[in-house]
Amino acid sequence: MRYAIKNGELIKENEAVVPITDQAIISNYSVYEALRVLGGKVVHLSDHIKRLEHSGETIGLHIPSINWQSEIDKLIAKDNIGDATMRIVVYGTKEPLYFITWHEILTYPDSYYEEGVATTLYYGERFLPTCKTSNLLVNYLARKSAEENGAFEALLVDRNNSILEGSRSNFYAFRNGKVYTAGDDLVLDGVTRMSVIRALKEDGVDIVFTPIKDKDIYSCDALFISATSMGAMPINSVNGKSVKTDFEFVKRICKKVREWEL
Amino acid sequence: MRYAIKNGELIKENEAVVPITDQAIISNYSVYEALRVLGGKVVHLSDHIKRLEHSGETIGLHIPSINWQSEIDKLIAKDNIGDATMRIVVYGTKEPLYFITWHEILTYPDSYYEEGVATTLYYGERFLPTCKTSNLLVNYLARKSAEENGAFEALLVDRNNSILEGSRSNFYAFRNGKVYTAGDDLVLDGVTRMSVIRALKEDGVDIVFTPIKDKDIYSCDALFISATSMGAMPINSVNGKSVKTDFEFVKRICKKVREWEL
Repeated sequence: MRYAIKNGELIKENEAVVPITDQAIISNYSVYEALRVLGGKVVHLSDHIKRLEHSGETIGLHIPSINWQSEIDKLIAKDNIGDATMRIVVYGTKEPLYFITWHEILTYPDSYYEEGVATTLYYGERFLPTCKTSNLLVNYLARKSAEENGAFEALLVDRNNSILEGSRSNFYAFRNGKVYTAGDDLVLDGVTRMSVIRALKEDGVDIVFTPIKDKDIYSCDALFISATSMGAMPINSVNGKSVKTDFEFVKRICKKVREWEL
Repeated sequence: MRYAIKNGELIKENEAVVPITDQAIISNYSVYEALRVLGGKVVHLSDHIKRLEHSGETIGLHIPSINWQSEIDKLIAKDNIGDATMRIVVYGTKEPLYFITWHEILTYPDSYYEEGVATTLYYGERFLPTCKTSNLLVNYLARKSAEENGAFEALLVDRNNSILEGSRSNFYAFRNGKVYTAGDDLVLDGVTRMSVIRALKEDGVDIVFTPIKDKDIYSCDALFISATSMGAMPINSVNGKSVKTDFEFVKRICKKVREWEL
């Protein structure tokens, strides 16, 4: 049995439960972060906490001022964690309520990076897209629909036919020597997204913070996604139709992103 | 300590909890209904179950085929419930998971019906608005914003500036002898909404299933909302500005709606 943290205390993971009669729980008034732990060390913690606080601020939910590093270290020590995916969730209940839980680190076959992954388009958008809230139904249904169609990820298309992000990733289109991606007024300012942008700049690539439209998706030179668990991952098809992708270019970006985690 | 039902079994209410590590719980992949119990009898149960099944179908979530009446009656008998608000929630977890819980019936002061209630406008819309899912953050934030401004309810305005519904109610505008309300392709087909529509028809009022725009809200003859807990309730102001409301008209509609519950 794994452990977890509840309000600073170590608990057994099966005690990480919430009451379904509380109005904040019923309304999913909560924010979260997913972190990567490598070799017993949590990656980019301060960026994640900054974003957690930004998410809380956006919906008026107070994030307790605690020493997240020491709480996470307590859990890492207790469960002797090497590599893992960790989750912090804070609820807007009357009494402060937060948990830290973990599970096996998400990794993907090398072929995903060598050959790219299949994607589908899903017409739907998140409420408060710059904020990592627990209102994840659109993400869940988008991903489910992708998987039912044999794809790895769904790309969310908004009311203006702009492709903003993936169901659990940020999205980038390389076209005529420039990378197009939604600005952080429209999407979550992903922690890995920040690294991708830094790597692109180091690579001398111009970045345009404007999302591409669905109709332009088949005329790009490379499409890729990024997420904490994925790094940068190339796309090889959209809705079953192949797309060009410069795998070497995406691999170079991914390598840098991963180096900065160590 | 109250009781609740979990998967057909009576449990103590404090055992009505869900694991925050389950993907369906994390993603709020669940649907629900709020019911009214009067004198130990649940009101319009078959309409609520029909809608629960519709909600489930919309997001591909299986609703177990059980005898809801007998499970509810078991809870009513155990806690000797007279009047109450009851909640059914079904989660899309791998193993079927549902709960029935209850709390004191929501009632409102007579003055709300005699003098109307204050409302505010909130620019935001629900994802899958015809479906009663647990993705309630927009409703929660809208209501919170209304209450912070001293109002009772927030009216949600969509991307087309149409006023579709309240944060926890349906919305109606009476104008030039006709009632305008969003069609059930745009909003939840509320169980009380069905009664309101029936009462309006009996009253000889034409109903137009088109929502009014925000700019037209101050030029109506009456505005009102409806919900299971409210019946039909008149609105006396929007964003702090008084609006005309024919209280006798709304009271007549409300009376019929409540009679049909008995």
